[in-house]
Amino acid sequence: MYDRLKGFRDFYPDEMTARREVIDTVEAAAARYGFREIGTPTLEATELYTDKSGDEIVDQLYNFTDQGGREVTLTPELTPTVARMVVAKSQALSKPIKWRSTRPFWRYEQVQQGRFREFYQTNVDIFGSAEPEADAEILAFAADALTDLGLTGEDFEFRVSHRDILGGLLEAFDAEVDTEAAIRAVDKSDKIDDEEYYALLTDVGLQYHQAERFDDLLGTDDLAELVDFAGTDRVADAVSNLEAVLEAVEDFGAREFCEISLETARGLDYYTGVVFECFDSTGEVSRSVFGGGRYDDLIESFGGQPTPAVGVAPGHATLQLLCERAGVWPEEAPATDYYVLSVGDTRAVAAAVARELRELGHVVESDVSDRSFGAQMSYADSINAETVVVVGERDLENGEVTIKDMETGDQTTAPVDEFPGDLERPTYEDWE
Amino acid sequence: MYDRLKGFRDFYPDEMTARREVIDTVEAAAARYGFREIGTPTLEATELYTDKSGDEIVDQLYNFTDQGGREVTLTPELTPTVARMVVAKSQALSKPIKWRSTRPFWRYEQVQQGRFREFYQTNVDIFGSAEPEADAEILAFAADALTDLGLTGEDFEFRVSHRDILGGLLEAFDAEVDTEAAIRAVDKSDKIDDEEYYALLTDVGLQYHQAERFDDLLGTDDLAELVDFAGTDRVADAVSNLEAVLEAVEDFGAREFCEISLETARGLDYYTGVVFECFDSTGEVSRSVFGGGRYDDLIESFGGQPTPAVGVAPGHATLQLLCERAGVWPEEAPATDYYVLSVGDTRAVAAAVARELRELGHVVESDVSDRSFGAQMSYADSINAETVVVVGERDLENGEVTIKDMETGDQTTAPVDEFPGDLERPTYEDWE
Repeated sequence: MYDRLKGFRDFYPDEMTARREVIDTVEAAAARYGFREIGTPTLEATELYTDKSGDEIVDQLYNFTDQGGREVTLTPELTPTVARMVVAKSQALSKPIKWRSTRPFWRYEQVQQGRFREFYQTNVDIFGSAEPEADAEILAFAADALTDLGLTGEDFEFRVSHRDILGGLLEAFDAEVDTEAAIRAVDKSDKIDDEEYYALLTDVGLQYHQAERFDDLLGTDDLAELVDFAGTDRVADAVSNLEAVLEAVEDFGAREFCEISLETARGLDYYTGVVFECFDSTGEVSRSVFGGGRYDDLIESFGGQPTPAVGVAPGHATLQLLCERAGVWPEEAPATDYYVLSVGDTRAVAAAVARELRELGHVVESDVSDRSFGAQMSYADSINAETVVVVGERDLENGEVTIKDMETGDQTTAPVDEFPGDLERPTYEDWE
Repeated sequence: MYDRLKGFRDFYPDEMTARREVIDTVEAAAARYGFREIGTPTLEATELYTDKSGDEIVDQLYNFTDQGGREVTLTPELTPTVARMVVAKSQALSKPIKWRSTRPFWRYEQVQQGRFREFYQTNVDIFGSAEPEADAEILAFAADALTDLGLTGEDFEFRVSHRDILGGLLEAFDAEVDTEAAIRAVDKSDKIDDEEYYALLTDVGLQYHQAERFDDLLGTDDLAELVDFAGTDRVADAVSNLEAVLEAVEDFGAREFCEISLETARGLDYYTGVVFECFDSTGEVSRSVFGGGRYDDLIESFGGQPTPAVGVAPGHATLQLLCERAGVWPEEAPATDYYVLSVGDTRAVAAAVARELRELGHVVESDVSDRSFGAQMSYADSINAETVVVVGERDLENGEVTIKDMETGDQTTAPVDEFPGDLERPTYEDWE
């Protein structure tokens, strides 16, 4: 007997039914905003990651040399791939470019609850707009996706921050600070205690009292205080931009889900403007459910024209944890509209009935195992068939079939040539 | 600028729109037969292939050693994975097990028209039934999938054969024949000339006159002749089974697409009963579009209980060639129901209109780039918006919006508080 690999999952039909419903809901929300589906490769040249991505991702790559001697990698995230695709067809694509896709990615990391080595994300991005409306549309889509899943403002919150506020504040201290390292420290701040946090900040260049002050500043509700403290255009502009994004989010109907939270920093180095993370409001799911933000410099760094960009990538493993916590994870069971049961020499008629029901778009199973009445009825029950149509020899002599409601057990007969007839979804009630 | 890898493809939105329509059509056909979706890993332990698969596949593996020292492989086909999954939950799964999935696979082979190193298939399988109805249901699903795509009996044919007829005939010759190698030769027969074919057959154990006779036998329309020639139960049973499958296919409505073609052998060694391949009836697509068949021994060889199985795996690259040849490949263009155009200080109202239209399920874009009227109208045209709703300052003073039909260019005004109102899909015609 063979085993699957650690960190990889088999999804059997029951679980897949629920997963598919969630993925389709998220995809449909993106589609309604005009995010167009793209299809992307599983393998990329390794240099696509080693040249640009953070060290953490590079250490976790599934990379190898292919039979043609190429250094290749199982894509650990989508952003470098879409950057490559935008650059390759930059002239031909009308802006804004609005793309979506759902697919697996791979990172060799420690497996834990909600974290796998093969994990699925829906990536949703806008390229070619630096306006606050683009950031706001990403947040509005994310809110729609979650509310379409049945989640409410009691269940989740978007913690919104801005990279240039963080960077601008750090710059305002009289110190030589490694800004990217400091932002990574901020990103970790809610997972560690204050002393450890201040130690990280002093490691990257702040003095201890500056670290305390920085921490205080990030906790404020009053953005004007930050502008005053820094006294720079950079912080003033970043605060204006964050406020403009939140005003647009208000117009787009998603302001109620957002709160300013400057401690939210996102780990990846390539973010440049507004960043945000979705959290479980109850805290029961303790880690970030997903995040996103603006990354205006990335396309240029991949050799393209300067192209502002903003995106979000709901991850389906953590999203499942949130849905389960909130009690909105879909039922894990197959749905079947009809089972057409054939006993005796009635296969041709049963097949014709099944065929007509399928042409109406229904999910219809019939016997492929030459089984008894009882075995077929039991199987029909196991697949949650709503209605069983029994095509038996005796009934057929009278030109009839038997229709059984599997919920109530009620049954009746109907003329075989009137079933399904003109009915879109014939049931027991139509002939009782 | 970075390049994608050879044999891997980027699908931009126009092409992806068409691909998605085709994949959804094939998936929907399978779903209506009660094939349940499963999700499967991209990587498997390499031994899953080296233990069982044909040499050709093993030579083409994308395999490597992961960071934990495991020998792993990018799945070159689905069958070993589903066999592993069936074995792992054999007791819990009610039979017949009917599964489907659409996903990419990877083989390092020569790239040519309709053949890529990353290629997509929809796998559809039944486990747990040895009855002819199971084979027939697989053929009936495949026929439904193709006719749902707009293909007809003029466009495609299923060439149906039986492994035991081939094996039984070979056994009936007074010769020591390597049956699997001989069947691989049969599989190649339509790509090579007779002399080369006979040379292959003599290489694997037949004498030259036996090879000629074997070739003659495979060309017959008269299955009884084969039973007479062999004089064995094996061939008689195989002929009976093939006939029973075709009778069930007749009941299931797909007989018109099938013809007996004993030269059709399928390359893979694990097939055991009925096998078939789909071909372009016009021959313009010269290679097999896809194939399938019965593989009753595989589950047991993976350590499970003996479990009969039959399946088919339409490949989307060759299916695209067939659809394009037949003129039924979907239009490669995005579809957009509405563009809500905002000029002046009208964002809040425009956003509310867009939101209401999205709540009705429509695909709606609006400005995220702070652009002029003309630039927005041009963008709306580029995304094929059917209707543009102009939310302008002057109109709004009169409590109106302008509705423009992008097909005809006609436009009219509607009260903003009646748009969309109770209408499911408001258009220019509603207020003209």
